[in-house]
Amino acid sequence: MADTRFFKKVGPFKLSEIAAKCECKLGEGANPDLLIQDVRSVDAAGEGDLTWAFIASVRDALKNTKASACITSEKFASFVPEGVVVLLSNDPHRSYGLAAQMFYPTVQTGGISDKANIDPTAQLGEGCRVDAGAFIGANVKLGRGCWIQANATIHEGVEMGDACIVGSNACVSHCIAQNKVYIYPGCMVGQDGFGFAMGILGPTKVPQLGRVLIGNDVEIGSNTTVDRGAMGDTVIGDGCRIDNLCQIAHNVKMGSCCILAAQAGIAGSTELGDFVVLGGQVGLAGHLKVGSATQIAAQGGLMRNTEMGEVLIGSPAIPHMDFMRQNVILKRMVKETKKGNKNE
Amino acid sequence: MADTRFFKKVGPFKLSEIAAKCECKLGEGANPDLLIQDVRSVDAAGEGDLTWAFIASVRDALKNTKASACITSEKFASFVPEGVVVLLSNDPHRSYGLAAQMFYPTVQTGGISDKANIDPTAQLGEGCRVDAGAFIGANVKLGRGCWIQANATIHEGVEMGDACIVGSNACVSHCIAQNKVYIYPGCMVGQDGFGFAMGILGPTKVPQLGRVLIGNDVEIGSNTTVDRGAMGDTVIGDGCRIDNLCQIAHNVKMGSCCILAAQAGIAGSTELGDFVVLGGQVGLAGHLKVGSATQIAAQGGLMRNTEMGEVLIGSPAIPHMDFMRQNVILKRMVKETKKGNKNE
Amino acid sequence: MADTRFFKKVGPFKLSEIAAKCECKLGEGANPDLLIQDVRSVDAAGEGDLTWAFIASVRDALKNTKASACITSEKFASFVPEGVVVLLSNDPHRSYGLAAQMFYPTVQTGGISDKANIDPTAQLGEGCRVDAGAFIGANVKLGRGCWIQANATIHEGVEMGDACIVGSNACVSHCIAQNKVYIYPGCMVGQDGFGFAMGILGPTKVPQLGRVLIGNDVEIGSNTTVDRGAMGDTVIGDGCRIDNLCQIAHNVKMGSCCILAAQAGIAGSTELGDFVVLGGQVGLAGHLKVGSATQIAAQGGLMRNTEMGEVLIGSPAIPHMDFMRQNVILKRMVKETKKGNKNE
Repeated sequence: MADTRFFKKVGPFKLSEIAAKCECKLGEGANPDLLIQDVRSVDAAGEGDLTWAFIASVRDALKNTKASACITSEKFASFVPEGVVVLLSNDPHRSYGLAAQMFYPTVQTGGISDKANIDPTAQLGEGCRVDAGAFIGANVKLGRGCWIQANATIHEGVEMGDACIVGSNACVSHCIAQNKVYIYPGCMVGQDGFGFAMGILGPTKVPQLGRVLIGNDVEIGSNTTVDRGAMGDTVIGDGCRIDNLCQIAHNVKMGSCCILAAQAGIAGSTELGDFVVLGGQVGLAGHLKVGSATQIAAQGGLMRNTEMGEVLIGSPAIPHMDFMRQNVILKRMVKETKKGNKNE
Repeated sequence: MADTRFFKKVGPFKLSEIAAKCECKLGEGANPDLLIQDVRSVDAAGEGDLTWAFIASVRDALKNTKASACITSEKFASFVPEGVVVLLSNDPHRSYGLAAQMFYPTVQTGGISDKANIDPTAQLGEGCRVDAGAFIGANVKLGRGCWIQANATIHEGVEMGDACIVGSNACVSHCIAQNKVYIYPGCMVGQDGFGFAMGILGPTKVPQLGRVLIGNDVEIGSNTTVDRGAMGDTVIGDGCRIDNLCQIAHNVKMGSCCILAAQAGIAGSTELGDFVVLGGQVGLAGHLKVGSATQIAAQGGLMRNTEMGEVLIGSPAIPHMDFMRQNVILKRMVKETKKGNKNE
Repeated sequence: MADTRFFKKVGPFKLSEIAAKCECKLGEGANPDLLIQDVRSVDAAGEGDLTWAFIASVRDALKNTKASACITSEKFASFVPEGVVVLLSNDPHRSYGLAAQMFYPTVQTGGISDKANIDPTAQLGEGCRVDAGAFIGANVKLGRGCWIQANATIHEGVEMGDACIVGSNACVSHCIAQNKVYIYPGCMVGQDGFGFAMGILGPTKVPQLGRVLIGNDVEIGSNTTVDRGAMGDTVIGDGCRIDNLCQIAHNVKMGSCCILAAQAGIAGSTELGDFVVLGGQVGLAGHLKVGSATQIAAQGGLMRNTEMGEVLIGSPAIPHMDFMRQNVILKRMVKETKKGNKNE
């Protein structure tokens, strides 16, 4: 069980209820009324626990699991040992996520702290929680069930939909966000972009007059920075997942369901299609058009537009297969030099 | 017009007034008394708006602009359609910046919040604004017209000049800053550098006894970190512009008007001349001397000293032309391997 | 002397006392009762000051030092000019660190501010200091002599040992830390890892049910992010030193005394042995096993497991000598192309 100092477990739930909510089909002969107490990994699970298995690396541990039930795929089901109820899913990772949400729901309790600094003109929807030290500026509008954590800051005029979270020590300004947006602790959204004209006498500030628009069901990681637009807006589409310490510069537009791993950076005005995936520490130059489903591997540096579905790696980023060949060639050349040295 | 939830527009202003303040020359036959209401991009501008055009990418849109006036360069002026008043500038980017500042000035209103935590020994100049939750420690000295945003933190003894801004959830310690310094939200200035002696029994802390000295007209981006000196000082010269998520290690010295794009990092004791430009995710090794006007392209890694004006790219960073040649050679080799495979 | 606006000096101390506490042997003929007033660098030191010298770059300055005493190694002692007392150490860097700690001790004074937001169920050990605006949640347990700085945030249930520091605008959640742990300003510890299942209809959140476990004598830099485990824990071993802006993903395990330079990142579930050293901007892929004493140079990208003591560089990371050869080969090829062009 997850550490009760930090997590509140609910349940138990019947297998049939779990199957229904987690989009699974119960294996043949399973008792639909069996009570499940908790979710646990294959090796840690015991009687009454639900586990999950859908990647090769857990296959060995799966043989000896003590779990009572296991979420898995058609392909993987044959590895589940006898006596463990199978819950078949087309997307077992998603099904496990839904199961874990059942047992460990996000609960907003605590109401509005009288130690929070909330401007009287701010409008908060029903069921919001605001912790001590949080700042909510003038004319801010929050939907229902939002959680503004301790020492978070929301500047004047910001609007967020329902079920949004702003983490501790995060700051949001110049931003319109839809529902279910989670700004992680320390994340900075809406500050000035990098706007100036550098001349021989020094820089002239160019005021940044745009906003940040965030779609539904978006998460933006800890200490990530999202600059507001210079004149138009910076846009983050529905379902995007942005990891920690990423940089999203002014006027970047991201389509739906893009994934940015930690420390990736996107320079100004670059536009991403849908389902673009950037590995850790990837950098995109400015003013690019990146096709949907483009994937750039970790530490890649993209300096050109991409078509849909390109898979690139390296700095500058090139097709994955070319990069592999290049490394083989270089390795061979290094090896030959070594031989040459020995022969001398 | 910029979103009024976030921006307060002033004006209108006469063309003559704009020309004077923005260092422009009014085109022939222009009515100096024409009232301008707002600044807007070439495609969004309408009657009464001022726009700007000085890069090739807007030339097409410029043909159809509905703006009443346009800031531009001598070279670009011929592309401005008839009926649009031309404001000629030697530096149209700067002139636009000045115009945008006229219509959207930074205004510090709000005074000192009684929810701010200000030590009684702190001295604040006239016209300062301090928002709720901001912390100002003992013996801090701030000049006139500073703005300390909600949940910002200024530690004991820090001194800053006039018109400085410390953004929300930023922290400044062990720092002496001149005028017009803008520490962005989430930026950390003055913490201990990475100081320890690692032995076989573990690390020994080496106290960091220096400071951070910041010149005039400096901006340091969101979630950027500037460590104080180990014994001497970390120094950031006048007019520097540092983007988000950069790392400035202990005892780094930056000359005037250096530009660091996002996620760049400078290791300890490295010294930069003036007008050095680092692209995004660039890394500089420690104890280097980087000549003025050196430019390192994005993701470059510098491991040696540079002369004035070098333009480098790659990791390790090499001259730009050599890098281009290297990529051509590698590409050719990969291509030949492919051919070879087909012939087999 | 360090700037008294920021640092409180104590002393003077007798040479004999310094020698004893700093693990040094006094040079022959030295007066053990000589009073030392301060520690200063070789070039800045004057009469009554203690300096230190153990790297080649200070040898010239050492000749002219005005210091009264100098911490140094056996090997370096001959360069110390006559009249300067030598304090011999097997580890002069460590000895200097100890000396600087004597003159500039970390002192926690100030007690518990009544402007701090501390939950009544939180338990604070003797001698803790909590500054205004700090938030300490329900059931938090802190040992003796901890310092929670202004606007820091500690979430519900967190436990930390003695002499821990949580810097301003840092946030700690879901974490159990031992003694002498220093979370720098702006550092984020314990937030959700990057957990979701991305499907064609969008992402499904996978709750992150683990914790962050931190050993003794650990420092985690400004704006660094340490995600909690997905199911098990993220672990940071004794004596680790993590610089600013690093990313430690969910379920990473670090052994003892690992060093991460700024902007390094470790992807999920990767395990490090002891004394691993990562240079600045290094990236480690996920699910790797990194042997003890592995060293990866700055900007390296590791995509495979390593044995004990490997020294790697490049992206993908290869042995240091191979990387050097590779660069020589590429340089030669570029040079030949240039020649070829001239001959055409």
